[in-house]
Amino acid sequence: MIENSQTSAFNWQGEVDEHLARQLRDTAHALADAARRVTLPLFRASELVAENKAAGGFDPVTQADRAAEEAMREILADLRPDDGILGEELQDKPGTSGLTWVLDPIDGTRAFLSGAPTWGVLIAVAASDGPIFGVIDQPYTAERWEGGLGHSRIETPHGAADLKTRSPRPLAEAVLFSTFPEVGGPQERAAFERVSAQARLTRFGMDCYAYGLLALGQIDLVIEAGLHAYDVCAPIAVIEAAGGIVTDWEGRPAHGGGRILAAANPQIHADALALLQRD
Amino acid sequence: MIENSQTSAFNWQGEVDEHLARQLRDTAHALADAARRVTLPLFRASELVAENKAAGGFDPVTQADRAAEEAMREILADLRPDDGILGEELQDKPGTSGLTWVLDPIDGTRAFLSGAPTWGVLIAVAASDGPIFGVIDQPYTAERWEGGLGHSRIETPHGAADLKTRSPRPLAEAVLFSTFPEVGGPQERAAFERVSAQARLTRFGMDCYAYGLLALGQIDLVIEAGLHAYDVCAPIAVIEAAGGIVTDWEGRPAHGGGRILAAANPQIHADALALLQRD
Repeated sequence: MIENSQTSAFNWQGEVDEHLARQLRDTAHALADAARRVTLPLFRASELVAENKAAGGFDPVTQADRAAEEAMREILADLRPDDGILGEELQDKPGTSGLTWVLDPIDGTRAFLSGAPTWGVLIAVAASDGPIFGVIDQPYTAERWEGGLGHSRIETPHGAADLKTRSPRPLAEAVLFSTFPEVGGPQERAAFERVSAQARLTRFGMDCYAYGLLALGQIDLVIEAGLHAYDVCAPIAVIEAAGGIVTDWEGRPAHGGGRILAAANPQIHADALALLQRD
Repeated sequence: MIENSQTSAFNWQGEVDEHLARQLRDTAHALADAARRVTLPLFRASELVAENKAAGGFDPVTQADRAAEEAMREILADLRPDDGILGEELQDKPGTSGLTWVLDPIDGTRAFLSGAPTWGVLIAVAASDGPIFGVIDQPYTAERWEGGLGHSRIETPHGAADLKTRSPRPLAEAVLFSTFPEVGGPQERAAFERVSAQARLTRFGMDCYAYGLLALGQIDLVIEAGLHAYDVCAPIAVIEAAGGIVTDWEGRPAHGGGRILAAANPQIHADALALLQRD
């Protein structure tokens, strides 16, 4: 999905210099600020009209979703014109720099439409092998998570803190989140329920906020299915910078989307992966 | 459950004078302020230790839960010494005034322990026939709903507004919330799923925050089972003051707890009630 990366002139693991790192971080925050300005006045606004994007399914696209992506693309055209863009709402834009911005202006549109502050703006910048920096922003609670480029942090109205995922514990003491009890098709649901049955507690309904709770060290696992690249790139960057690990259900890189296993540490990741794979 | 009300000397429907109304409202806000001061520093604190209240079940009681109820009871001893108290954590206190304070210091302890800001402090003052005023407070998002005594309001960091539930719409366009997909026993679950199958969207995991979304006009229905009086008295006062209706699954008064149907208006209440009762 991040097809512009072949033209990369950098080895992003080692050679993002301090100047570029600062520029990428500043750009990501400018995007998040713009998305806040656009989305917040429309959140809980009763005149909000949802279109029906997928024929037959319930996949609301709000005015806020589209306007936020447009606002972010305008900033990128100004600050990072040579980077590619992969966004949820508008057409992919090829780039020449080797870097791609991966944008989900409103992850959790159903939460947004219900007035629940568990949706978020997801912003990542990715190289060929995955995201190198990501932001999860919740405009209503004014919480902003960031991670990557040697750095992880949350800022909230109650203060700021470095992020750190939870220390290892047995599954029987672990808290697991997922957005829907359905979790994909029947086989995927059965796999999810093998993990859920052993966990101390399973909760639903949090959208990308669950990844934020994982990065904060509040929960142990997030398991999802059917995700897109723009749903996961920012969470991957934030969670891995906080000490966690995110893969698909086969233990492979997950930045292309699909079935996601996000874990607070390698030990509980291995425990959950074994249950997801057992048939 | 609100057994002190037999001694009431008032007809609470008509004769709460302005002075008493103001005193009850001020007391409720003082309780909510105290609970915020106690709970907020413990929210997302990693050193939090949960006891296991129910043998075999997962029903965490946190330090915050108990300390918040103690702080609220101290204030009541000072400001309203003759009222009864029915709280989740500590023993019932009989009163002589005919009024009973119904307190749930942390509704949604599982959310609290997961770091999710969907728990709340529930405060109601009730007469013999149910709550006359209630507060739902979310300390982390700093949102406070209040309703009753001729008044309904939300205060948030983004501003304040009167509360108004949604206008009638068909079930096929309605949003339904519940805390758990399980919703009670097998029969209760089947009844819930008859409503859920016809709703536009069903979401889980919000605890008392769902009642707040209903009072805000963001969603249409909340359906729960197995609740206590202290889980529902404050939501009933807030939702009814905002124009909604809350009953049990037989359409009777719900302030004693049990199986709850909270609806934005009488029309959608009737639609959901018919489906809950059909066997």
